[in-house]
Amino acid sequence: MSNTYYLSQSNEVELFQAAASMNLPVLIKGPTGCGKTRFIESMGEKLDRKVYTVVCHDDLSAADLIGRHLINEHGTFWQDGPLTKAVREGGICYLDEIIEARKDTTVVLHSLADYRRVLPIDRTGELIEAHPDFMLVVSYNPGYQNVLKGMKPSTKQRFISLSFDYPKPEIEKEIIIKESGVNAEVAQKLVNIAGEIRQLTDSDIEEAVSTRLLVYSAKLIVNGFDPYQACMHSIVESLSDEDEVLEVLRKLIGLHFSS
Amino acid sequence: MSNTYYLSQSNEVELFQAAASMNLPVLIKGPTGCGKTRFIESMGEKLDRKVYTVVCHDDLSAADLIGRHLINEHGTFWQDGPLTKAVREGGICYLDEIIEARKDTTVVLHSLADYRRVLPIDRTGELIEAHPDFMLVVSYNPGYQNVLKGMKPSTKQRFISLSFDYPKPEIEKEIIIKESGVNAEVAQKLVNIAGEIRQLTDSDIEEAVSTRLLVYSAKLIVNGFDPYQACMHSIVESLSDEDEVLEVLRKLIGLHFSS
Amino acid sequence: MSNTYYLSQSNEVELFQAAASMNLPVLIKGPTGCGKTRFIESMGEKLDRKVYTVVCHDDLSAADLIGRHLINEHGTFWQDGPLTKAVREGGICYLDEIIEARKDTTVVLHSLADYRRVLPIDRTGELIEAHPDFMLVVSYNPGYQNVLKGMKPSTKQRFISLSFDYPKPEIEKEIIIKESGVNAEVAQKLVNIAGEIRQLTDSDIEEAVSTRLLVYSAKLIVNGFDPYQACMHSIVESLSDEDEVLEVLRKLIGLHFSS
Amino acid sequence: MSNTYYLSQSNEVELFQAAASMNLPVLIKGPTGCGKTRFIESMGEKLDRKVYTVVCHDDLSAADLIGRHLINEHGTFWQDGPLTKAVREGGICYLDEIIEARKDTTVVLHSLADYRRVLPIDRTGELIEAHPDFMLVVSYNPGYQNVLKGMKPSTKQRFISLSFDYPKPEIEKEIIIKESGVNAEVAQKLVNIAGEIRQLTDSDIEEAVSTRLLVYSAKLIVNGFDPYQACMHSIVESLSDEDEVLEVLRKLIGLHFSS
Amino acid sequence: MSNTYYLSQSNEVELFQAAASMNLPVLIKGPTGCGKTRFIESMGEKLDRKVYTVVCHDDLSAADLIGRHLINEHGTFWQDGPLTKAVREGGICYLDEIIEARKDTTVVLHSLADYRRVLPIDRTGELIEAHPDFMLVVSYNPGYQNVLKGMKPSTKQRFISLSFDYPKPEIEKEIIIKESGVNAEVAQKLVNIAGEIRQLTDSDIEEAVSTRLLVYSAKLIVNGFDPYQACMHSIVESLSDEDEVLEVLRKLIGLHFSS
Amino acid sequence: MSNTYYLSQSNEVELFQAAASMNLPVLIKGPTGCGKTRFIESMGEKLDRKVYTVVCHDDLSAADLIGRHLINEHGTFWQDGPLTKAVREGGICYLDEIIEARKDTTVVLHSLADYRRVLPIDRTGELIEAHPDFMLVVSYNPGYQNVLKGMKPSTKQRFISLSFDYPKPEIEKEIIIKESGVNAEVAQKLVNIAGEIRQLTDSDIEEAVSTRLLVYSAKLIVNGFDPYQACMHSIVESLSDEDEVLEVLRKLIGLHFSS
Repeated sequence: MSNTYYLSQSNEVELFQAAASMNLPVLIKGPTGCGKTRFIESMGEKLDRKVYTVVCHDDLSAADLIGRHLINEHGTFWQDGPLTKAVREGGICYLDEIIEARKDTTVVLHSLADYRRVLPIDRTGELIEAHPDFMLVVSYNPGYQNVLKGMKPSTKQRFISLSFDYPKPEIEKEIIIKESGVNAEVAQKLVNIAGEIRQLTDSDIEEAVSTRLLVYSAKLIVNGFDPYQACMHSIVESLSDEDEVLEVLRKLIGLHFSS
Repeated sequence: MSNTYYLSQSNEVELFQAAASMNLPVLIKGPTGCGKTRFIESMGEKLDRKVYTVVCHDDLSAADLIGRHLINEHGTFWQDGPLTKAVREGGICYLDEIIEARKDTTVVLHSLADYRRVLPIDRTGELIEAHPDFMLVVSYNPGYQNVLKGMKPSTKQRFISLSFDYPKPEIEKEIIIKESGVNAEVAQKLVNIAGEIRQLTDSDIEEAVSTRLLVYSAKLIVNGFDPYQACMHSIVESLSDEDEVLEVLRKLIGLHFSS
Repeated sequence: MSNTYYLSQSNEVELFQAAASMNLPVLIKGPTGCGKTRFIESMGEKLDRKVYTVVCHDDLSAADLIGRHLINEHGTFWQDGPLTKAVREGGICYLDEIIEARKDTTVVLHSLADYRRVLPIDRTGELIEAHPDFMLVVSYNPGYQNVLKGMKPSTKQRFISLSFDYPKPEIEKEIIIKESGVNAEVAQKLVNIAGEIRQLTDSDIEEAVSTRLLVYSAKLIVNGFDPYQACMHSIVESLSDEDEVLEVLRKLIGLHFSS
Repeated sequence: MSNTYYLSQSNEVELFQAAASMNLPVLIKGPTGCGKTRFIESMGEKLDRKVYTVVCHDDLSAADLIGRHLINEHGTFWQDGPLTKAVREGGICYLDEIIEARKDTTVVLHSLADYRRVLPIDRTGELIEAHPDFMLVVSYNPGYQNVLKGMKPSTKQRFISLSFDYPKPEIEKEIIIKESGVNAEVAQKLVNIAGEIRQLTDSDIEEAVSTRLLVYSAKLIVNGFDPYQACMHSIVESLSDEDEVLEVLRKLIGLHFSS
Repeated sequence: MSNTYYLSQSNEVELFQAAASMNLPVLIKGPTGCGKTRFIESMGEKLDRKVYTVVCHDDLSAADLIGRHLINEHGTFWQDGPLTKAVREGGICYLDEIIEARKDTTVVLHSLADYRRVLPIDRTGELIEAHPDFMLVVSYNPGYQNVLKGMKPSTKQRFISLSFDYPKPEIEKEIIIKESGVNAEVAQKLVNIAGEIRQLTDSDIEEAVSTRLLVYSAKLIVNGFDPYQACMHSIVESLSDEDEVLEVLRKLIGLHFSS
Repeated sequence: MSNTYYLSQSNEVELFQAAASMNLPVLIKGPTGCGKTRFIESMGEKLDRKVYTVVCHDDLSAADLIGRHLINEHGTFWQDGPLTKAVREGGICYLDEIIEARKDTTVVLHSLADYRRVLPIDRTGELIEAHPDFMLVVSYNPGYQNVLKGMKPSTKQRFISLSFDYPKPEIEKEIIIKESGVNAEVAQKLVNIAGEIRQLTDSDIEEAVSTRLLVYSAKLIVNGFDPYQACMHSIVESLSDEDEVLEVLRKLIGLHFSS
């Protein structure tokens, strides 16, 4: 059943299963590209629950989650949104980057995220009791959080929390090999490069290199690209547009792969 | 009739009943997760009135409270909003986090909240006299209140006010045991932890730990999780994203449960 | 005919009647809860004209006052707004807190508020001559007025003006007794408390205590509540959320009613 | 034909007639209540052209001037706005307080205000050539003009300009007597009061007293009100909400009418 | 064919014709009232292409240029906007004051303004190849340009540019005589006045006097107005509302025409 | 098949082909007018995939990319947007100036830009698996990037990156000759002028001269224009509105072509 490749890093699988069994909502914190989406996809397969993923943004309205009336040739009909579908059918509703969403989007979660587990749909006057297998999961990147758009305590204190980080070197190496087919030596070098970049504290790098970008590099190398050029196009250019930072990153790559 | 578990903390039950009998609207102030929603749900059961809960937010319009015209296969029809339903049928309309609402949302309450007790619906030209059992309840968290979004005196001076706080230790312990099934010793430790966190004045903690999070910890422990880990995932990670604050909280937990 | 209880304070009744007879619009200034709404309701009864009250706010559009096209099962139809109804049928249109309204809402009043007394409805192409009994009344609280939202001179200079303030002590006492049924001694104490609070110049109190809150206190006392507690819930908690201010107010109450 | 009472102050009638005969648009500058609306109404009667008055504001859209598609029981139809009506039928379109309008509202005037005299209606694809009797008149109050909302030179340089001010004393006195029926002595006192207020340079008075307010005072006096009280309600309270300014104005009135 | 009166000032006619023959878009810079609109109208007549003029503003949307679906009694239909009409039929689309437009309005021009010469209409899924006679012309006034609303280099670098200024004295004099019928002596005086005003560097004059205003003055004089008064109403009052500036301008006029 | 003229500058063709074969999305950085659009058009021809170009801007909504319900005479129907078309049919979707787009526009790309390669359409409830030939390409100009509108790392780290710059002199000369038919000597002079302007560091030039503008100059010269005048109208006036900068550029041109 479990087709999505995911390597566990800590107690995240146990915690997620406990939350699922106790009907508690889960909040995942972590940087981009560290495997949050894969983790939830793989948990969905493990628990045999469908995953409804919604990437949040400024313009996401409550109706985008709950649903709306639409018109077709037979007249108007109600179209469930992804949240309502998960609530009715018992799936996992995963709201990625929740702090990007508008407030009206997050408050509709309140009655689902506490002991009530109900979703009122004002437009239809319906009050849906959540399916026993319904599970609410949200995530955000603490590195982005700012004064204007933090999560309100009244929302945050309804969730069990879980912190993700980049995988440990040996796990990251295994992921790179598995996903790109590159050899172990190159994979090790890429992991070493990632480690060094993640220790840079230069504020011009908004966020450190993700596992995903390492896999991109490995894929380009397997495709026949020169390793230095591969790192340029998949790692260096993605991390910054500043000439000085680019120069630092180029030199750092050059220490591992000759240009 | 009363199924919702609620432990009274002060004279809040008497005041709510008096307000209900005198047809006065009620304003509840207090932090998140201290039991406001449960209190109102339990009062609704005690008074045998249905509770219509609306969580307020920036984008909540007056139409979301009052109702709107909708279209279905038989043509257009008027759909009462939750406020109008409560006004017609005599229920409790509870507006949570009222200061998050836009001004147009709060002024529609004025004629309901003074001696007139009427709701004019401009869209339909209707003027509804409130059912004798209609009651208006609003709440907010004084800790959030700011210059831009305070409640206007002309609104505030229409309500009887009631301040909530976290339950007293013995009551909080009883709640934790009752809701999670944890043993008394662990419940006491959790209450002690809460007491210490609530005395921290570190401004990086937006709001102190709620009773709800203590119950989450207890549930994870009952589920077999290590108590230290349980507190990490249910308390510490929910209160802050700042490394220094997390460190302080971890140490505080470590004094009660070994890591 | 006059059922609304209202005690005249100065020459406001005469001025209102003169304005009504001369077809001049009236502007009322005054703090919240001092009886503006009651005054207009009672004048409506005295003059035998229906009162259409609209509480203004940021999102009130001109269409909310004038009317709009709606759709029902028989097709579209025009629905008069409260202003248009008053203009056609000869009632009093009362716009409360006019300076909260958007500019488009106030400029539609211009042709009604000068010698023309006409209301053009652009949507229907209609030009309505006001009924002889139509009267326009607006109010605002000068204490709120700010640079951004003051009333434009071109609007203000179309009105006869009238200033309201809290009732004089003997009148306020009479109101409290009449509305709550409390005894004279308690009513006197409440009036004394109000007098002292209204002399506080502490800027943390946005607006002083209204007669309405005094009536609430009296009602709670009649209902059996301890007078000190009654004042807490109806006066003190409504005036501030600041601990220091609450403390001052509690002590002030304690001088009149023992806690 | 000319029913509107208007007393000419300078060469404004000749200039307006010249502009009308040469098909040039006219811009009128002047304070509120000095008679701009009456002047245009009287010119409309003199030239036998209908006047379409639109008071501009922030939310006035181009469609409000030009027109829009509406739906009724027979389907959709096009409804001309006031500008389009004047363009088709040859009336005077008068846009009061033009600098309050949004830019999209003013630019639709460009092709009407230069040698082209055409109005393109994008929504219907129509291009209307203005009727020979169409005339465009706009006004604003230079005292309000600010950096954000000034009129663009590209708009302003399409108009013949005309400055209005308060009427000269003998003319103002005549207007007051004619409109209120007050005796000459009281009218003279009111004109004297106005003269003194208009010389005050106190910045707390946003705009000086208009002729309209003087007429209001006279009407209240004729109605039997004490002159001092009449001035309070029609002049003083309209000009300021500041206690110090009110005090100054009260004293000034007291020098003419005993309180 | 060429009915619009236009006097060439430099090589603008040749450049426009070259751009037309090479299918290059043209950008015209220059102050208001210097003849940009007339120039384009006259070029349209010379090239026998219809001119579609759109005055840009903050609220002009891409749909206003491209078109939209409308509903009439026969159902919905697509209505081409002015840009689409010009693209299909081969006319000149002239966007006046392009930097006032929103960004979505300017980017729809990109594919029309480079080698592709196509207009994709997303709403209908259509991709229109421009008619060989389609020509895009935009203009703006460099004096208004500000940081917030400059034209993006990626838009600007798609155009051939052309700078306009006020006509040379002898040409301006000829224009004034031709358009107003005034005698040569007065026309010369008006040109002299314009020259002096254009040398004023007083920052209170937002933009110097246009040829259009000189023609207005001449028309009023021909109509029988005193030259000094004519200049007051057509030049002085249009250029400023500041008393000091008005005084300077009045004196300047008085040196040419006695008041 | 390949009709679009494009001269390769570095390894961009190989990288694009590798990304296409590995199903990785591509991000192109570079200044305006350096050939990004042509490159992608030519790659589309080489790979035999249709290119759907969307120029991003502030008001581009997710619906503009994905599609929307439209109404025609047969009722409502769903209209795929350009992104959905490319996803279904296997074309290249090219989003130009991606950082101008709103956040809701970029997050819809997330599930297409990682290993999932699916596009959920909430409005219809459809989940489309991308055609094997679907390819996502975005571009932006790092010179414009600002704090408010940078690309989020969570978006950026999903792309292989590629930096474009102006062509090398010999390539640029070849492009100019090929596109305009100008002789080699003039083309060389234009390339030299470009080289000198690109070395200017004057901050008043927002962006240096593009190859496109050089081609415009050459076309005007071939059309018979004086070379100095041709450079004025196609290069100088496009780069600045500041008198001092214009003067510097004019002198620079004058060193190559006599005025």
